[in-house]
Amino acid sequence: MQQISSVNNATVKKLAKLKQKKYRDEENRYLIEGFHLFEEAMKANKKYQYILGTEQALDQAEEKYDVDLSGKNVILINKAIARHLSSTKNSQEIFMVLKIDQSREFPFNFGKWVLLDNLADPGNVGTIIRTADASGFDGVVLSPESADLYNPKTQRAMQGSQFHIDLIKRDLANVITDFQDIGIPVYASMLDRTAKQLLDFEKVPQLALIIGNEAHGVSETIANLSDEKLYIPIKGQAESLNAAVAAGIMIYHFA
Amino acid sequence: MQQISSVNNATVKKLAKLKQKKYRDEENRYLIEGFHLFEEAMKANKKYQYILGTEQALDQAEEKYDVDLSGKNVILINKAIARHLSSTKNSQEIFMVLKIDQSREFPFNFGKWVLLDNLADPGNVGTIIRTADASGFDGVVLSPESADLYNPKTQRAMQGSQFHIDLIKRDLANVITDFQDIGIPVYASMLDRTAKQLLDFEKVPQLALIIGNEAHGVSETIANLSDEKLYIPIKGQAESLNAAVAAGIMIYHFA
Repeated sequence: MQQISSVNNATVKKLAKLKQKKYRDEENRYLIEGFHLFEEAMKANKKYQYILGTEQALDQAEEKYDVDLSGKNVILINKAIARHLSSTKNSQEIFMVLKIDQSREFPFNFGKWVLLDNLADPGNVGTIIRTADASGFDGVVLSPESADLYNPKTQRAMQGSQFHIDLIKRDLANVITDFQDIGIPVYASMLDRTAKQLLDFEKVPQLALIIGNEAHGVSETIANLSDEKLYIPIKGQAESLNAAVAAGIMIYHFA
Repeated sequence: MQQISSVNNATVKKLAKLKQKKYRDEENRYLIEGFHLFEEAMKANKKYQYILGTEQALDQAEEKYDVDLSGKNVILINKAIARHLSSTKNSQEIFMVLKIDQSREFPFNFGKWVLLDNLADPGNVGTIIRTADASGFDGVVLSPESADLYNPKTQRAMQGSQFHIDLIKRDLANVITDFQDIGIPVYASMLDRTAKQLLDFEKVPQLALIIGNEAHGVSETIANLSDEKLYIPIKGQAESLNAAVAAGIMIYHFA
């Protein structure tokens, strides 16, 4: 085990910068935080670059998850460093540094997928991925403009689902063609009341479901590539649903 | 129109404190912010104590919503005061001060209701109220321990639904009895896989649907008062759904 005791240590400074997308992209690695994500990453046998934790947090993790944390890529830190690395108000003082691995070819596993078209909010992206996992969907494709998968808020909202299902950043137009080429229907969820209502859609064994941006919905280009446009009826006076809630209702309809 | 130009003005200081529950409870009033909520409050003919805005924001509101903002309860403020009153990063620089009115007797309008048992997150509370509105539900009861209805984050997440449906803070045990006394079924949503699955529930003309705390679910006492316990099946590896997403799936099932 290594030990770092200064917030000004070069490694600590570099790792704290992974909260920013620019540095995650440059260094091709990201930081996760907290016992739940630690446990999920361990269960998924994720290769980690470092585990960092305060003495108390490392002891607790060893005991709780029956893992050996004496290796040389485990770093003992103090509370000040934990605060510096943390993206939460009340840090659980345990962190993992993981490699970003987005080299896999698509398609590798068809089935039921969600396609995110420019979803802007990291909390929504993470929550939708968690819902896709819970419903038994196979994966989620994020358009390049969507909120970053490795953003600490996205990571937190996924609650471990990042280790359960396939998550891919890819241009949606190409992905849509891939699905259609093998006969899988692609549905775009619209804010437009003239689209076909959700309840009129039958369950299908495989599909791609496109969810659009919080304010503007699915872009026109992408919607026009889809096979059908669908709409969740609004019966009250609300203008629309929260994007993650709307996605949840649609995903469970097709689950 | 009045004008205030100092952040240290006594009225401004008092209004800024309305971001805290303690002061909202003491003064029985709260602050809403932004054009969308302003518009919704005007549409609902809400009596306001004050409207505050920068010159640009007031001009824009007058033009956009065809309202007269020259009255003496309209206060012209500057950008520094707007920043001070705001709970958002990018303030739209328009505010309304509204009275908290929770004196109405329950029940006054049965139908379809959501009951929130100790929901802790203001964003979740607001999002569930927005979903209840969109689905045509009649109202939402918040247990006294739930996140505050007048919290700026709750207000923002409701997106105007606070002016469309009935929202009541009340002890849930009494409310449940009120529903049951006139034969309306009360369902408690559980994290427990042994409960009856959502899809096995038929649509009913009236119901009360209890949603529990994000981490602990519906409390045992409250669950035991309900007529049936229901559960959304988890098919993947996720342990659970986000509370607002789960509520959305259930609400739309019964809508």
